[in-house]
This record gives sequence, C-alpha cells and structure tokens, in this order.
Amino acid sequence: MKGKAETSSKRLSSLDSLVQQYKLPEPVLVTRPTMPSFEEYCGRLKGIWERRWLTNEGELHRELERRLAEYLGVEHLSLFCNGTIALMVALQALRINGGEVITTPFTFPATPHVLYWNGIRPVFCDIDEKTFNLDPSRIEQHISADTKAILAVHVYGTPCDVEAIEEIAHRHGLHVIYDAAHAFGVRHKGESILQYGDLSMLSFHATKLFTTGEGGALVCQSEAQRKRINNLKNFGIADEETVIGPGINGKMNELQAAFGLLALETIEQEIENRRRLAGIYREGLRDIAGISFLEDIRDIRSNYAYFPIIIDEEQFGLSRDELHNVLKQFNIFTRKYFYPLCSHFPCYSALPSSAPSNLPVAERIARQILCLPIYGTLDEEVVQDICTVVRKLSESAHNL
Amino acid sequence: MKGKAETSSKRLSSLDSLVQQYKLPEPVLVTRPTMPSFEEYCGRLKGIWERRWLTNEGELHRELERRLAEYLGVEHLSLFCNGTIALMVALQALRINGGEVITTPFTFPATPHVLYWNGIRPVFCDIDEKTFNLDPSRIEQHISADTKAILAVHVYGTPCDVEAIEEIAHRHGLHVIYDAAHAFGVRHKGESILQYGDLSMLSFHATKLFTTGEGGALVCQSEAQRKRINNLKNFGIADEETVIGPGINGKMNELQAAFGLLALETIEQEIENRRRLAGIYREGLRDIAGISFLEDIRDIRSNYAYFPIIIDEEQFGLSRDELHNVLKQFNIFTRKYFYPLCSHFPCYSALPSSAPSNLPVAERIARQILCLPIYGTLDEEVVQDICTVVRKLSESAHNL
Repeated sequence: MKGKAETSSKRLSSLDSLVQQYKLPEPVLVTRPTMPSFEEYCGRLKGIWERRWLTNEGELHRELERRLAEYLGVEHLSLFCNGTIALMVALQALRINGGEVITTPFTFPATPHVLYWNGIRPVFCDIDEKTFNLDPSRIEQHISADTKAILAVHVYGTPCDVEAIEEIAHRHGLHVIYDAAHAFGVRHKGESILQYGDLSMLSFHATKLFTTGEGGALVCQSEAQRKRINNLKNFGIADEETVIGPGINGKMNELQAAFGLLALETIEQEIENRRRLAGIYREGLRDIAGISFLEDIRDIRSNYAYFPIIIDEEQFGLSRDELHNVLKQFNIFTRKYFYPLCSHFPCYSALPSSAPSNLPVAERIARQILCLPIYGTLDEEVVQDICTVVRKLSESAHNL
Repeated sequence: MKGKAETSSKRLSSLDSLVQQYKLPEPVLVTRPTMPSFEEYCGRLKGIWERRWLTNEGELHRELERRLAEYLGVEHLSLFCNGTIALMVALQALRINGGEVITTPFTFPATPHVLYWNGIRPVFCDIDEKTFNLDPSRIEQHISADTKAILAVHVYGTPCDVEAIEEIAHRHGLHVIYDAAHAFGVRHKGESILQYGDLSMLSFHATKLFTTGEGGALVCQSEAQRKRINNLKNFGIADEETVIGPGINGKMNELQAAFGLLALETIEQEIENRRRLAGIYREGLRDIAGISFLEDIRDIRSNYAYFPIIIDEEQFGLSRDELHNVLKQFNIFTRKYFYPLCSHFPCYSALPSSAPSNLPVAERIARQILCLPIYGTLDEEVVQDICTVVRKLSESAHNL
C-alpha cells in the first residue's frame, strides 16, 4: 500500500480501470443451493398429498433417514428441523446441562449458543493454523473439574485430529461431540468422519453441500441413544402418556424430507463438480504472493464444501477486509467466514478464555480468512475469472 | 358399571353387537390437515426454483408474514420453524432466563419445556373449570420475589381472562406471555386475542387449524421488538459482523411459507366448516348424561380448532379412558388432550406447585377430557355417526 499521502483519486482510477476490464457480468454469490428437478420434486410431493401426513415421522422422513444413513455409512441417524436444534439435543441426550465445555471460537455462532441453551459455560481453545480446527495440544490446559465435554468442529469439512481428541477425552473421562455441519460425506481412512465421538451433528441449511432448505441431523452410536434422541426432539414424548424429559420440537417435516431425498440423488455429482472447481481455484491462485489455501489431505475424502483462502496483507498488498470489499466491485461476493470469532461476541467476550492472548492463531486466521464462491452449478469460467481478478489485484495491489 | 362379578363375556357380547351395528367404515383420526390444492402448491414453488432462495427471509416468508399480520389483525409478526422455538425466543426476547414463571399444568409439554430451556422454574397454577384456562383468582397466591412472568395458554382457543391477568401483571410488574398455539384467528370483542400480553405464540403444526406442516410465529407489540426477535431467531445475528446475544435457529423455510400462503386463502372456509361440525356435535351430544362440552362465548369469535368433551364417569357409565379405548373399536380415534398434566411429568413432578392438592380442577379435567375428531374436511355424516355411537354407548354403558 502506498503512503496515506498518495492521492486517493489516483488509487481509485487504477482500481476503476481493473473493474472496467474484469468485472463479472452477473453477481456471483458465495454459494447457491443446487435445486433438484422441479418436476421430480412435485412428483415426490404427491404421496404427501395422498397420505395427508405432513410431519411426525412421515414416510419420506423415514426414507430419508434410512437413505442418508446408508449413503453416509453410519448406522444411527435422526433428522432435525435444523442443525442448531440437533446440537442442543445432542448435549441434552448426554445430560450435559451445566459446567464447562471446551470448544473453538472459530466457528458459526450456533456452536457456542447451544452451550448457552444448555446452561453450559464455553471455554474457548485455540486452533491449529493448518486445519483451522481445535489444536489438540492446547486442549488439556483448559480442562478443569467442571469440564464435561469437548465440542469440536470439522471446519470447512477438514476432519479434526479425531484420534488425539479421543485420547484426551478418554484420559479425562470427557464426552466428545462433533459439530460436523460442514462435513457431510467426508471420509477419514475410508470411514465416515461421523463415526467419531459420542455424537455428530450435520446441518442441511441452504448454504450447505447437502440441503433440505433448513434441516439437520444427529448421528449417534446406538439405537437406544437414537430412540432417546427421537423422543427428545418430540418434546420428550415416549408414548401417549409418558414424557421422559424437557424435550424440544426438532422435527423435520415432509416437505423438507422430499427435497432431501432428491438432493441425495445428485450429491456425488455435486461433490465432483466442486472438486473440479476447487482444482481450478488452486491452479489459478497458486503462487500468488500472500494467498494460501487448503490442499487435499492424505486419507481424507473431502467434500469441497467451501473454498477458504488466507490473505497475508503484507505480501498480498490488500488486507482481507479490503479484498472482500474490492471484490464486490467486480460482482464477486465473498464471505468473511468465520469473522468475528465467537469469543468476540458481547455474550462471550468477558469469559477468561476469550482473551485474545489465549487465542492467537484463531485471532489471526479470523482476520485473514475469506471464503470464495463455490457451488456445484458455478461455471468453471467464472472461477477462472475470479482467479484472474485476484491475480490482477495482487499485481497492482501495492499501487491501489 | 356392573359389579366385577358380572361375567366379562356378557359385557363383551353387548359391546360387540354395538360395534357390529355402528362401527364406522373407515378409521377417523382426531384431526387431519386440510391440504391446499396440489397444483396450486407446485405453482407457488416455481418462484423458489427461479430465485434459488430457500430460507433466511425469503420472498414467500416475507409475503406470509405480511398477509398473516393482515388476516390476524396484528401489526408485528415474526415467523418461526415451529411454535416451541418461537416460545423459547419469546422468553429470551424479554430477557427472562431465571427465576419463576407462573403457568398452567393443563397444556402441551412445550409450554413448561420452554421454561426449562430458559433456566426458569415453572410454578403451576390451577385452572378454571369452565374455560380450562389459568384461574386468575388463584394466580396471586403463587407470586414470589422470584416471579418474572405469567405464561398463560388459550386452551382450545378459548381466550384466557385477559383483563384479569393484565391487572395482576400490572400490579406486580410481571410480563405476560400467551401460548396461543390453539388461538389462531380468535377474536375477543372484535379484536385479535393476540393483542394481549407482551407476546403471543402461534403454532402452525400439522394438527393445527392453520398449518405450514411445522411452523409457528410470535406476535409482539412493537417493530423494535420484532427486529430483536428476528435477530434472535437467526442466531442473534444483527449484521454481518454483530451478534447481539446467544440466539437460536428458528427460521421458517420457503417450502413451509408457500404452504402457509395457500392455507391462508381457505382459512375462513376451514373455520366455517368446523363451526358447522361443532354445531352437529353439540346437537348430537346435548342431553347425554355425563357428557358436557364448551359452548360459544359472548363477544368471542371462536375458531373451533378442537371439540373437547368432559366425561363424568358416574353419570355416563364409562370413564374417559374406557370411552377412549372403546371408541377405537368403532374406528373413532380420539385424543386424551391434555393428559397427563405437565405437573405429572417426572421432570416437573417434584416441584411444590405440582402437588395434586394445588391443582384440583386441572387434575379432574385431565382425567375427564377427551377431544373428538374435528377438521374441515370431516364429513357431517361422520360427526353424526360419532354422536350416535356416544349416545348408544351412554344408553348401554351401565351394562357394558
């Protein structure tokens, strides 16, 4: 960046000429859902109209649970209206409703919020600078007599160090819950990543790889636990006259389930499309000074749900915030995801573990991260164009 | 009932002959949703496919909020994925997250459960034997230094004594929240019943008069409050970089909103159909010894969402439980709604206010209540047949 003395008019004209030359013809959002065929969706709805059964373990709901479990390679899965309610019920199912839970600040607000709803104090632990996931080497220093569990997040679908977390949990007798909102279809050494921990939560929000508009699921380790979860998501109702506890309404309806059944049919194609786009991004952005990104990892089948890049302001010439803003002028809409850290929200910022000095890596990554547009129906040419814009900006950034 | 010495075979043969004569040809459930036209629903979906926008304040969501507010005669309404999450957010919006709230045990489990999720101790107060709603004359004895609010329920859509509750609330500085899950479209002196209290919750579950499959709403008193509620139901996110508190995911998706827009078009017809059916029930059941029911109330526009009857075992000859079971043999599926009382659930039964001696009216009504089938598309003849069965059972009940 030039000194402040540089006239802003000159900087603007330099950017203006880039915008004139490289602006994309249409706005490109960070993500868009891949819609199933409209005709097939209406076809799927017909049965709902015949049965006049809209929710409470409908036929499509049961079918989707069965087919999702099969596709994901897990045995016990329960659908929810959204991932947040699923995660709330996960903690309730384990009877964790007080004390402390160790979690990451580099996540969506839902992660710490489900702790609040269960009367639990979050304890933020720093993340690994390569994976953006909880750094196992820093977990144990946060374990106190009040610690009940570790709530880890597979950020961008990159698996946590599940073996290290498991070892710590076993040593201290802690539960492990995975927020796998990003990790649909991710496999670790050929097995579903959802097999790890006591429970894993999936999100099917419209911004997710696999979507039911809103939606989510819990994956658990036994049929007994699944039954308990099914009761808890239906107000704790076990039968007509028995309520086993203060449950909630977490039920997915048939309109969502119908959508999910069709989305599942094309999910492998969706992942393949994104894999190709991620390849184009990597090729197009490689060797741009100050830009780095995730690479494929050995033994991991990725889902390419996101394409986050890290911007080193010194080398690139623009800060993450500047790049985010400048890209809008090119019709490229990126997302500061995750920023700010959850530890900065007023409701958590007074916690001792929220001190920036406790979270140096997370603080830096949150300032440097930017998610670029990626979704199955995005044109390869658009991705190439985005790479070109970033490259051109890099070349002239120090003059902007 | 004859003495236990009576041979059961004789009792059975007497019932058998009634069943042979009066059994309905098809099972009649207590309720079924009125489905909008399938073609019109698919037509409504088209725009969603064009916009590829599935949730987060979609176009249909905004339209449904606007049209519901208009229809209901309220100014500030916010849609939710279901009524339970709406009620949880209602308490959070008022910052009630501890202490005690006075409520009724004669309600669906969701009512006390939302208190649990907000860290609040329920204090159960007895009900009025005519309306089945909180008995205002018994509220004040439960007010302590820890009381924060009154959470009242318009059971079966019958309005609470809103003026008396308001007066108590004003005298003691308490908030008032109405669980109006049953009270869609109910008007009190020409005004929406939802105008009373700080907040009212509506449920749009498939068993409700107006449905979106799953769904619900909060009605509040100002646009500022609605904005706060909108933030809280979206994780507390106020803008791209600001989270105002530990919110939740309570968002309704576009598939639900499309359903609701069509359901709203026929809601007056639905209420009219039910009004006619309620009239047939009243005519058919009037003067059966031991059966009583709700009548229309002056100044109240009812919605006829339910048709509950009270069974006096001594006079009728069968207990409520016996009638419920016997009716199944006639293909008539009724609902013990509400039974058991929430104060009987293990999670609440140890509370001092759960003592049956504190809740004599609620205890009795819960033992005597039975909801008969009612829904807009139910045939008038079926209702007549149900009345006939109940009358025949009454005539021979003492011999059964």
